[in-house]
Amino acid sequence: MNNYFQKRLATLLQDYEQLINKPNAAIMTDSGVYDRYLNPVLTASHSPVFWRYDLNEETNPFLLERFGINATFNAGAIKHNGKYLVVARVEGVDRKSFFAIAESDNGIDGFRFWDYPIQMPETDIPDTNIYDMRLVAHEDGWIYGLFCTERRDENAPVADQSAAVAQCGIARSKDLVSWERLPDLKTPSPQQRNVVLHPEFVNGKYAFYTRPQDGFIDAGNGGGIALGYADSMEDPVVDKEFIIDQKVYHTVYEVKNGQGPAPIKTENGWLHLAHGVRNTAAGLRYVLYVFMTDLKDLTKVLHKPSGYFIAPEGIERVGDVSNVVFSNGWIADDDGKVFIYYASSDTRLHVATTTIEKLTDYVINTPEDGFNSAHSVQILTQIIDRNKKLYADKTPQGWV
Amino acid sequence: MNNYFQKRLATLLQDYEQLINKPNAAIMTDSGVYDRYLNPVLTASHSPVFWRYDLNEETNPFLLERFGINATFNAGAIKHNGKYLVVARVEGVDRKSFFAIAESDNGIDGFRFWDYPIQMPETDIPDTNIYDMRLVAHEDGWIYGLFCTERRDENAPVADQSAAVAQCGIARSKDLVSWERLPDLKTPSPQQRNVVLHPEFVNGKYAFYTRPQDGFIDAGNGGGIALGYADSMEDPVVDKEFIIDQKVYHTVYEVKNGQGPAPIKTENGWLHLAHGVRNTAAGLRYVLYVFMTDLKDLTKVLHKPSGYFIAPEGIERVGDVSNVVFSNGWIADDDGKVFIYYASSDTRLHVATTTIEKLTDYVINTPEDGFNSAHSVQILTQIIDRNKKLYADKTPQGWV
Repeated sequence: MNNYFQKRLATLLQDYEQLINKPNAAIMTDSGVYDRYLNPVLTASHSPVFWRYDLNEETNPFLLERFGINATFNAGAIKHNGKYLVVARVEGVDRKSFFAIAESDNGIDGFRFWDYPIQMPETDIPDTNIYDMRLVAHEDGWIYGLFCTERRDENAPVADQSAAVAQCGIARSKDLVSWERLPDLKTPSPQQRNVVLHPEFVNGKYAFYTRPQDGFIDAGNGGGIALGYADSMEDPVVDKEFIIDQKVYHTVYEVKNGQGPAPIKTENGWLHLAHGVRNTAAGLRYVLYVFMTDLKDLTKVLHKPSGYFIAPEGIERVGDVSNVVFSNGWIADDDGKVFIYYASSDTRLHVATTTIEKLTDYVINTPEDGFNSAHSVQILTQIIDRNKKLYADKTPQGWV
Repeated sequence: MNNYFQKRLATLLQDYEQLINKPNAAIMTDSGVYDRYLNPVLTASHSPVFWRYDLNEETNPFLLERFGINATFNAGAIKHNGKYLVVARVEGVDRKSFFAIAESDNGIDGFRFWDYPIQMPETDIPDTNIYDMRLVAHEDGWIYGLFCTERRDENAPVADQSAAVAQCGIARSKDLVSWERLPDLKTPSPQQRNVVLHPEFVNGKYAFYTRPQDGFIDAGNGGGIALGYADSMEDPVVDKEFIIDQKVYHTVYEVKNGQGPAPIKTENGWLHLAHGVRNTAAGLRYVLYVFMTDLKDLTKVLHKPSGYFIAPEGIERVGDVSNVVFSNGWIADDDGKVFIYYASSDTRLHVATTTIEKLTDYVINTPEDGFNSAHSVQILTQIIDRNKKLYADKTPQGWV
């Protein structure tokens, strides 16, 4: 037995170090706005060996997994003490998820989990499941983590074990190790997911991006990304939600949408990353899109390119919940480089890199949605015409 | 044409023999409880050439498939005369499925179908579709095959051609070639699927694992794996169903669950393999889990590890019905080796191998579900603490 245990442990540790030390490589994309990367930055296999196994040969002679990890995805992100940190949604084989921080020197590979997951304090109503944390360094000096806390709908009949209520949980920290839990956000909507704290005060108030939601799965009548204000974080109450980016028929955000990470401040406006959802015969399809709001009036959308910014590709297409990309974390470096952390199919975490400059070009100069096919053909024809004119006398064929 | 026919036939036969004779290889898994295998053990391509083609050149000059097979999956299993047999759900391109037995010498490769599919006799109400047979060698001396028989719901309006009624069909055999059909099982539930016969008498009665079910797809109020008793197999009536493993919010068996094959008797209790279903934005997700019941009181669950035991991986994730693993057959050898036959995505059949010893360790020593995130973090933190202590003085860093 001894030999079996030692050999298996050596293999597990070796595989683990190989995985963590595997260098990542950028892949040029057709869009040109961002680079994709060859490998995901976090997978279930990135969870440490000393998490998943009892390493005591006496109590675990076969070296079986005692705490299986199913997936690591939807991560908040922040640069902290010069390191790139993601706070991943770590999901056990039992479906329960929790938060754990993984750290990298360069933001694109070498992500290693801190030794312990986050010990999240609870409110008076215990959380059944917590996930999708948005990290925000607010100008009040705290780092806030807003996340979804989910509990069973106690009004549902016993036979229906799926009915759930989603709310916005709030915690804050200075070091990302010890966390203070604050009350859940109160809003006019019966349920909330994808709530994000704006990093700056607005007229002395805290500003929240919310997603008014009638039911657990359905976004319902609420319909869009909204903005609301609260006087304090200790008693966070949003009285009114103003829709700033609504659902629209036959767009990539037709069924529902939600703010991704907190927006990034640029000279031209606040850059937003959001997810949009449409329905298909094979279930919902989640893609990411980008828009820009006014620096002074946060409810005013200045620019919004047509369509998606990132959609699932290759292996990203398939996972526990296929046909999904989702992002709740990005990091803007001082030099203008941007790291977008997006998860694919509720299974793994990827990075895409770009710059503020490219994102700004993209958001301002990509044609807006015309909401019908004829408009698309018109836009495309204009581009072709201009290109033809430009190249008319440059090649024998009058064309490239 | 002659040349075409002969060449095509030679290719088909050669490919077929190559497929059947392809050796399988075990793959170490992170869980450590079982090995997965490189290749599926049965696919549509494993159905014999002489099933699918009219091999007469005069009537089939192009050597076209005359009876296309779409998939071979969800198989019952039994060791019989020293051979590993699986009774597969063989599905034609027309969606109708039937049963056929494939045989292997070692249980992991070389599965070859018997020449003829099973000629299943019918009851007074003809079956429209039959599938998912559980094979049980009962101590009464018969081998029983319990399966799902499905017919259109004749109360549904003509426009709705999907409404169906599922019931438990029962047949028995001594040689697995000729079968005697018995009446369908009667239970208090309007529909039944995933019914399994317990291999031993319980107080002189036959014991059935049932799954009370309100509708064809919905498990409904029934909610769980139940146990019921019948006096005879010739007139099989279960008067009362006792839920032994119910659906629970935010688990892998939240939406529905069902017994897999008949349980395996061990020193410590009856080992059960079951499937659990949850909902996702991309449809239902089926995984397998394990639990153990008391040797004396079959309704008493002694141990139940948290979360799933096997979930879809790699190519298993995608198929006719994606995101599904399902098992209705396993074989326990006298030496303690266990062959788990599981299908992926309603398309193909795989094997995983383990031992009674490992399964027992897994089922007893894996932490149980705590039903919330905080509990998961607590369990994980305990494992990390113990591992840290254990390795404190073993490496310079005090850590592996």
